[in-house]
Amino acid sequence: MSESISHSVSYSSIEKPPFAVTVIGSGNWGTTVAKVIAENTRENPLLFEPIVRMWVFEEEYQGSKLTETINKTHINTKYLPDIKLPDNLIAEPDLLKSVEFSNILIFNIPHQFLEKILSQLKGHIHPKTRAVSCLKGLRVSEENVELLSDIIQKELGIWTGCLAGANLAQEVALQKFSETTIAYPLPPDYIPGDVDATVLYTLFHRPYFHIHVIDDIAGISIAGALKNIIAISVGFVDGLNWGDNAKAAITRRGLLEMIRFGLKFFPSCKVSSFTEESAGVADLITTCSGGRNFKLAKMMATTGKSAHDVEKELLNGQSAQGLVTAKEIHELIKNRKCQEEFPLFETTYQILFHGVSIGILPYMLENKWSQSKQNFYN
Amino acid sequence: MSESISHSVSYSSIEKPPFAVTVIGSGNWGTTVAKVIAENTRENPLLFEPIVRMWVFEEEYQGSKLTETINKTHINTKYLPDIKLPDNLIAEPDLLKSVEFSNILIFNIPHQFLEKILSQLKGHIHPKTRAVSCLKGLRVSEENVELLSDIIQKELGIWTGCLAGANLAQEVALQKFSETTIAYPLPPDYIPGDVDATVLYTLFHRPYFHIHVIDDIAGISIAGALKNIIAISVGFVDGLNWGDNAKAAITRRGLLEMIRFGLKFFPSCKVSSFTEESAGVADLITTCSGGRNFKLAKMMATTGKSAHDVEKELLNGQSAQGLVTAKEIHELIKNRKCQEEFPLFETTYQILFHGVSIGILPYMLENKWSQSKQNFYN
Repeated sequence: MSESISHSVSYSSIEKPPFAVTVIGSGNWGTTVAKVIAENTRENPLLFEPIVRMWVFEEEYQGSKLTETINKTHINTKYLPDIKLPDNLIAEPDLLKSVEFSNILIFNIPHQFLEKILSQLKGHIHPKTRAVSCLKGLRVSEENVELLSDIIQKELGIWTGCLAGANLAQEVALQKFSETTIAYPLPPDYIPGDVDATVLYTLFHRPYFHIHVIDDIAGISIAGALKNIIAISVGFVDGLNWGDNAKAAITRRGLLEMIRFGLKFFPSCKVSSFTEESAGVADLITTCSGGRNFKLAKMMATTGKSAHDVEKELLNGQSAQGLVTAKEIHELIKNRKCQEEFPLFETTYQILFHGVSIGILPYMLENKWSQSKQNFYN
Repeated sequence: MSESISHSVSYSSIEKPPFAVTVIGSGNWGTTVAKVIAENTRENPLLFEPIVRMWVFEEEYQGSKLTETINKTHINTKYLPDIKLPDNLIAEPDLLKSVEFSNILIFNIPHQFLEKILSQLKGHIHPKTRAVSCLKGLRVSEENVELLSDIIQKELGIWTGCLAGANLAQEVALQKFSETTIAYPLPPDYIPGDVDATVLYTLFHRPYFHIHVIDDIAGISIAGALKNIIAISVGFVDGLNWGDNAKAAITRRGLLEMIRFGLKFFPSCKVSSFTEESAGVADLITTCSGGRNFKLAKMMATTGKSAHDVEKELLNGQSAQGLVTAKEIHELIKNRKCQEEFPLFETTYQILFHGVSIGILPYMLENKWSQSKQNFYN
């Protein structure tokens, strides 16, 4: 551990309550998660330090520094306007100051800033710090797939779980009912009193934000990434007016392919993470009923325009993550020679980028892989 | 076996192809299923007798007998207008004539006629005849729950499976893509060559209507009944504009309660029937996104009117099955003293019939049963 760390608490109590929490990131989801956490730390002062620090990338906004505005008005006027934040949530512009003395780090930054933030934090984090990543998705390369939480874990040497679910920042901020899944296996160096499922449940659970803690990080990470490809396919068939049952059929086949992908690339992941959890089936349902990927695909189907043109026209310079994921997954399964195991993902890619007709979908799904098991009887 | 049965085939070949098929029922779903079957028997003349008989309750329609119209024009003008039926689908007004010589019976009649039809058939069906019931649901009494397929099996002494899925007759008739699940365990007296999963797959699978055969009749029957209660709850929260993630959360919690109910009342049923099959998760998704039960509940939430008044106003004398099921399930779990295991079903009942506020839902779901397992770690 670097000598530059000074703790006002001694080594031996890093694993013991009260735990100090820092949220790294302050976009609309980061601020929302910080709000939820601050509500809970305030209510559980034996378990948590009441003060929650939120690292905010400092910027000028409406004539003031954003951190000063947040600390004075308790509103993140730029990224979560009109939502009153708890007084015990403090905005901190200095990254290292924000994490000093914290036992629990919650990562909630855009993917593209992850490497930079991690390089700044590296060497400054006590190895017994516990982390939860709210970044959705996977890092897909041509031959392999990596969990974003593993990237944090490797760079900083700290045990990292992840949080994902059927959530929209605005809804959670307005205290509308939803749920989320936290995946946090017990650390190998766990001692009773350390951060565990109960601690994280208490940190995140609100009457309007229900938590389920599981131990399958890979499962929820994969679901979070692949749902976007499925949403595109559902958008296609919605655009062609094939009906709700066609959409449900595509959603179901997508769920089965997610499971197959999970078990293939992360054999220890659990089927139930996909089929029973908020981060699995629930998030798949919402993602397939609206959202950018769905809308982009629907417009492709109704207008005949290319993915590229629709993305420009519809999304105003923003990108649809599903397009990237569809391409990355295609490359991966092509290089691993297992395309025929994923007819929905592969056909979606072909429709998106190679002009294949949407009408081919039922035919491509009508093969031996259409059964979730190869034999009719289990 | 009654002496009144005369077969033009001998006893020893009742279990062998080619199999003759009769569809009992000719409403819009019955006629659609008969169409699908007739397309397949025509294409597989070694496995099936090409002629498919459909028992049609004879009535006058537009100046003619309905069976005559169907056989002349190949359109069921009353129950499936504008859809051309295959020439090898023959309408038969005499129930016993329609089933004579058939190896496979497909039941597709409204629930209220089941007892009467069974009493007419009793004693006239060869015990080695195989059946598939398309009737959705359960027979719920105050202390018990029975599968509709078991009722057919008991009355007629024939092995009976069932078919259910995310299907709408009109969409399947128009050959829009969808899927369905068939549950058909191998009969105990099965001999190779007899009706099995492959036979049923071939009988029902079309390029636009994909089949998965499993062996869990209880699972898909329970899903088919309970989804309607869940759809009501989703309708409530949609009516209050709680957002898509609230709806997905309710859908997910409903799925978990379905599973719990299934395992409690039919311990041999499989979790995957609910979480992976068309008759499970896919039908749940479509039922919760539209349909009578959803719409009724949504209107209750937006207007404050009672279930009874909305049913009259919205459904024109038709009934919403979910209201009946919610009441029946409430009585059953009350008598079996396990209400606290089903907070979503119970709270939905209380909202429907005892004026409890919809707003209580998150609180009622926020208890130890909110976790799919009692411990955080499996």
